[in-house]
Amino acid sequence: MTTELDHQVTFLIEIDKLKGIDRRSPLVDRSRLENSAEHSWHAATSAAVLAPYAATGVDLCRVVRMLLVHDIVEIDAGDTFAYDQEGRRSQHEREAAAAARIFGLLPETQSTELTDLWKEFEAMETPDALFANAVDRYLPLLHNYYTEGSTWRGHRVTSDQVMQRMACVEQGAPALWPYVQTLIDDAVQRGYLLAD
Amino acid sequence: MTTELDHQVTFLIEIDKLKGIDRRSPLVDRSRLENSAEHSWHAATSAAVLAPYAATGVDLCRVVRMLLVHDIVEIDAGDTFAYDQEGRRSQHEREAAAAARIFGLLPETQSTELTDLWKEFEAMETPDALFANAVDRYLPLLHNYYTEGSTWRGHRVTSDQVMQRMACVEQGAPALWPYVQTLIDDAVQRGYLLAD
Repeated sequence: MTTELDHQVTFLIEIDKLKGIDRRSPLVDRSRLENSAEHSWHAATSAAVLAPYAATGVDLCRVVRMLLVHDIVEIDAGDTFAYDQEGRRSQHEREAAAAARIFGLLPETQSTELTDLWKEFEAMETPDALFANAVDRYLPLLHNYYTEGSTWRGHRVTSDQVMQRMACVEQGAPALWPYVQTLIDDAVQRGYLLAD
Repeated sequence: MTTELDHQVTFLIEIDKLKGIDRRSPLVDRSRLENSAEHSWHAATSAAVLAPYAATGVDLCRVVRMLLVHDIVEIDAGDTFAYDQEGRRSQHEREAAAAARIFGLLPETQSTELTDLWKEFEAMETPDALFANAVDRYLPLLHNYYTEGSTWRGHRVTSDQVMQRMACVEQGAPALWPYVQTLIDDAVQRGYLLAD
């Protein structure tokens, strides 16, 4: 007889694979690339620390859970680089199939709950999703800044591209927005990021 | 002028180091040792998935935040192996100093909040701390079982030692307790774990 716990354990063992999915960004000490599991931890922890900058009405508990599961689809779909136009075209389809398979390992109620949280994160419409995305994008900005633009320089990213990607911060974490603009300007000044 | 955000960013950059702290347990695919940052992600996510097994009155939001920060002290104090009697004697002192330094990077209110969460986790007295510890200990049990006792066998761990370490599951996640006992018995049967 398969119990609910069997399904939950299967899911918990399956998501161990997220520790093997590399992102494009290095750790701050530049010793190696960061993986998506440790990034998810950093993002969820950052949400708790940056909660004072969130827009009104944001539910921190939901945001943290959203950030814990937001990258799980990468186990099947891989990490798509933020500035890879080609990869981003097929990203949605690949990730939707991954969500169906991986969250589908769980008992139905939990599967639906986590799938809905992930979809909400992706849609970037609710205050919770906007704040979660703001944190998820602010963190690589810090990583890049503190590694002298390691990922930006390698991919010739421009300040306009970063500004566009950071737009959700203005809605999701309005109190953080002026700092983001200053950091981007400073990164251009220091030569970490290309001016447009 | 140093803003609150400067302190928060210093903290967020500092805790990146947790990604470089190795635990004794390998990933499920045994490709390398697990680090404490990705373990913290796995533990926090597991708490959300295993919430149905928690004792009455457990606040999942607090448990998740507790698990996100429970290992941060290891940046200074290192990971102390669960069955290392010698290391565990000096563990408390080393970790208290680490908590003071690392959480102390944050603005005062947040520093106090995270220090208190960490202390509560360590004291294992409240329902939230007991559930958080239950999850934190159940996960290595699964990891060990699914890697045929990789860590247990290397350190000649006995079923009695594991049972003792799992005792908090009975209080923190009573609905999980019978499964833990069965898993330990099965691990002994399969030769993953020494009988007493």
